[in-house]
Amino acid sequence: DVVGESPARKWIRDVWQFAKEDMNRITFSLKVGLAVLLVSLLILIRAPYEVFGTSIIWSTLTVAIMFEYTVGATFNRGFNRALGSLLAGIFAVTVMQVAMACGQIAEPYIIALSIFFVGAITSFMKLYPSLVPYEYGFRVILFSYCLIIISGYRMGNPIRTAMDRMYSIAIGGIVTVLVNSLVFPIWAGEQLHLELVGSFNAVADSLEECVKKYLADDGSSHPEFSKTVMDDFADEPAFHKCRATLNSSAKFEAVANSAKWEPPHGRFRHFFYPWSEYVKVGAVLRHCAYEVMALHGCLHSEIQAPYNLRCAFQPEILDATNQAAELLRSLGKDINNMKRSLQTNLLKRVHSSTERLQRSIDMHSYLLTSSHEIQDCPPKLPISQPSNTITCTSKDSLSQVEESGSNNEKPNSDDTKPVQGDSYHETMRKQQRRLYSWPSREVDDYEDGDVDTDVLQKMRTFESTTALSLATFTSLLIEFVVRLDHLVDATDLLAKMAKFKEDY
Amino acid sequence: DVVGESPARKWIRDVWQFAKEDMNRITFSLKVGLAVLLVSLLILIRAPYEVFGTSIIWSTLTVAIMFEYTVGATFNRGFNRALGSLLAGIFAVTVMQVAMACGQIAEPYIIALSIFFVGAITSFMKLYPSLVPYEYGFRVILFSYCLIIISGYRMGNPIRTAMDRMYSIAIGGIVTVLVNSLVFPIWAGEQLHLELVGSFNAVADSLEECVKKYLADDGSSHPEFSKTVMDDFADEPAFHKCRATLNSSAKFEAVANSAKWEPPHGRFRHFFYPWSEYVKVGAVLRHCAYEVMALHGCLHSEIQAPYNLRCAFQPEILDATNQAAELLRSLGKDINNMKRSLQTNLLKRVHSSTERLQRSIDMHSYLLTSSHEIQDCPPKLPISQPSNTITCTSKDSLSQVEESGSNNEKPNSDDTKPVQGDSYHETMRKQQRRLYSWPSREVDDYEDGDVDTDVLQKMRTFESTTALSLATFTSLLIEFVVRLDHLVDATDLLAKMAKFKEDY
Repeated sequence: DVVGESPARKWIRDVWQFAKEDMNRITFSLKVGLAVLLVSLLILIRAPYEVFGTSIIWSTLTVAIMFEYTVGATFNRGFNRALGSLLAGIFAVTVMQVAMACGQIAEPYIIALSIFFVGAITSFMKLYPSLVPYEYGFRVILFSYCLIIISGYRMGNPIRTAMDRMYSIAIGGIVTVLVNSLVFPIWAGEQLHLELVGSFNAVADSLEECVKKYLADDGSSHPEFSKTVMDDFADEPAFHKCRATLNSSAKFEAVANSAKWEPPHGRFRHFFYPWSEYVKVGAVLRHCAYEVMALHGCLHSEIQAPYNLRCAFQPEILDATNQAAELLRSLGKDINNMKRSLQTNLLKRVHSSTERLQRSIDMHSYLLTSSHEIQDCPPKLPISQPSNTITCTSKDSLSQVEESGSNNEKPNSDDTKPVQGDSYHETMRKQQRRLYSWPSREVDDYEDGDVDTDVLQKMRTFESTTALSLATFTSLLIEFVVRLDHLVDATDLLAKMAKFKEDY
Repeated sequence: DVVGESPARKWIRDVWQFAKEDMNRITFSLKVGLAVLLVSLLILIRAPYEVFGTSIIWSTLTVAIMFEYTVGATFNRGFNRALGSLLAGIFAVTVMQVAMACGQIAEPYIIALSIFFVGAITSFMKLYPSLVPYEYGFRVILFSYCLIIISGYRMGNPIRTAMDRMYSIAIGGIVTVLVNSLVFPIWAGEQLHLELVGSFNAVADSLEECVKKYLADDGSSHPEFSKTVMDDFADEPAFHKCRATLNSSAKFEAVANSAKWEPPHGRFRHFFYPWSEYVKVGAVLRHCAYEVMALHGCLHSEIQAPYNLRCAFQPEILDATNQAAELLRSLGKDINNMKRSLQTNLLKRVHSSTERLQRSIDMHSYLLTSSHEIQDCPPKLPISQPSNTITCTSKDSLSQVEESGSNNEKPNSDDTKPVQGDSYHETMRKQQRRLYSWPSREVDDYEDGDVDTDVLQKMRTFESTTALSLATFTSLLIEFVVRLDHLVDATDLLAKMAKFKEDY
């Protein structure tokens, strides 16, 4: 059955790949197996079973419910379970005493009423926003309370029942904690550390990928809309990682919360390690990543700057991007090596290359605006265009502008980078097709008839907007660099508080 | 104890407020109480207890674990629980038979080994990405298997144990499902419907708020950085809602997943109601909301267009914003009323007002670029500035430009909207302070010395970039409107598939 085996083999290879990606997954699975086995031995071997009795099976349940991936999460869940059971036990015993004091007839009514109220109150409390993290604890209170009080009522001595159960839960909890933290422990702190370093690299990769694609896109591969919405940019792996970073804020906080429960370990050797600073650096990094998302939106926008215009600013854009990405990676590397350095040189280079980009945009800003503003303006407008040394020379005629959508960019782009001459007309054709494609729904007429709406002017308007799209892209890039300053500060604060070794 | 009572009273008021916000919370709590009470009665009343025996307490556990907020989620969890218990039961009975066949000595070893493997395999499987939604099911398998096989080994007949437990779990499950779906049911479908409508309004509100603030911000209230990172824009309630919408993709999918489990109900009367379309519309809406986030980033950016320049384009920006927000609200309202209408008029108005904005930017694009590009350019550059009817007039001298950072904007903004004359110098002062504040880390010298870096040129560069920031803002706004087209399409598809009543 070679034909029938093929999907099974593929499945096995997938699973193997999944396990190999992170060997901790195998470790975790084997540890769970070990913990349930150890607890089960308490029952399978006669001697401990005779000491603890039938309620020892609760320890198995405790292991199955309490065993979490990381040490910190297990501690946290154990705390919920222990406190929940304790509260339920105390409350159950109290109610039981009251009910018994009220006599045989009233007893079941009091118990029933108390069950109703415990169910209603715990359910309401776990919805309350500040108590949501303890949701599991409230569930534990509810079912522990019901089990203790009911089995106490039906099976005699409620205190005995509660104590027995408490012992078994404690045994299960202790086995869980010992196996989890002593046998190849998976520390939440370590995960958080690696996650943060990975985020730095993801943002750097995504920035480079996005800018590279922006400069390479000659309009031939305008993406389908379904692609831009349904979020499967298959050819942009770094973008996926960056978006995952953006969506990871809840996960980050959860892991940091787990890490706080862990004792000093491995390379995180001092007490009160500043795990919350990791979350803060992550927040600043996300603040930077929002700009990358905006750049990505610009890349897949329907209104695009002409290819040759983008080419004109290629060296400056690329330089600023590469410097920024290098700074990001270097910050990530320093955190990874727990080293504190100020990155002054890299920061200087990022600033100077960004300023070069700004200056270049500034010098050639006339490329970004359309060429007919003076003719369209009301004549009474006082135009302030100070050019005291050179007056406007080499003016094209309007007819030439009308002929080709954006040929005013062509001659100028020569000064920065040679334009691929052969593809120019091709580019123009695509660009115009794209201009006409918006608005996608046809708008027949305007409600106010006094606005002049001939096709030519419409086209010019779009053309001007397309050129400004490059301004948008570079503005976003510059804003990204501005935010890097704050990232450097936040990283430095983390390094100081976590006592990273200094390296000047 | 009035002083001592005060926080307690505040707490009670808070809780009351929380309950009043959504009365479903009270309903849910009382329903949980009712369900646990009903199950407990099976034990508290003698007759059913004698029929079912001690294992009936498992039904209490089942209720406590299975009772979820919505009907669909409860069905889903019940499915996990039922299938998990069934698989665990079948597997436990099989292993038990094999172990018993192998003889007294081998039996505990086989049981111990099977527990280890079940623990390891279920733990590994629940980490696998495509199986993560069934995480609870795997937990159920693990602890059910352990409980059944262990109590079977110690307490005799494993099949009897398994069957008894199955009965009690089934009773618990049935009570949960009946109470949840018959007593004031909370439908996931209804929640999803309202959530989507709320998202439309949140994005519309946030857009308006953001633009209003952008046009009102005269630079006096430049936010602290900690504010922009730590995400507590206390004065922007709509922004919070919009960001919540962005982060709600996981919640949206979870609720839609629950809704699929629900039978037809209320106003969702036909089978196979297209809940997944809600998720798709939500995705397109989020795609629009990303632009609002970018606009918000622009609003809180460190590089800002001068106040008077923003004022110049105020009418067009405001008009486009209001039209877009109105379209969004109207789409949300239609979904809320389950009405299908094409919104042609509104869409037309949005398009025409956006085109007016584009045209206005186009006509005044010289405002967005600095005024000294000609002098800075290499003389050999062929400048194509076609102005065949009117030649450049009324040129300021360079000294005048040097004197004030952006006074070339002042006279021109008059043609669109009168500038508040008195605050002009004040604005200029703030603007210049802001320009100097970047870069926040001092960069002492440039690595390549040949670039001319006197303070004046630096300032000019910043000035030019600040003006382009307005272009960025409007580009993002236009891109938002472009995406609205797709939102209209997606909403229409939902209306068609969900058979909303037509209204032309």
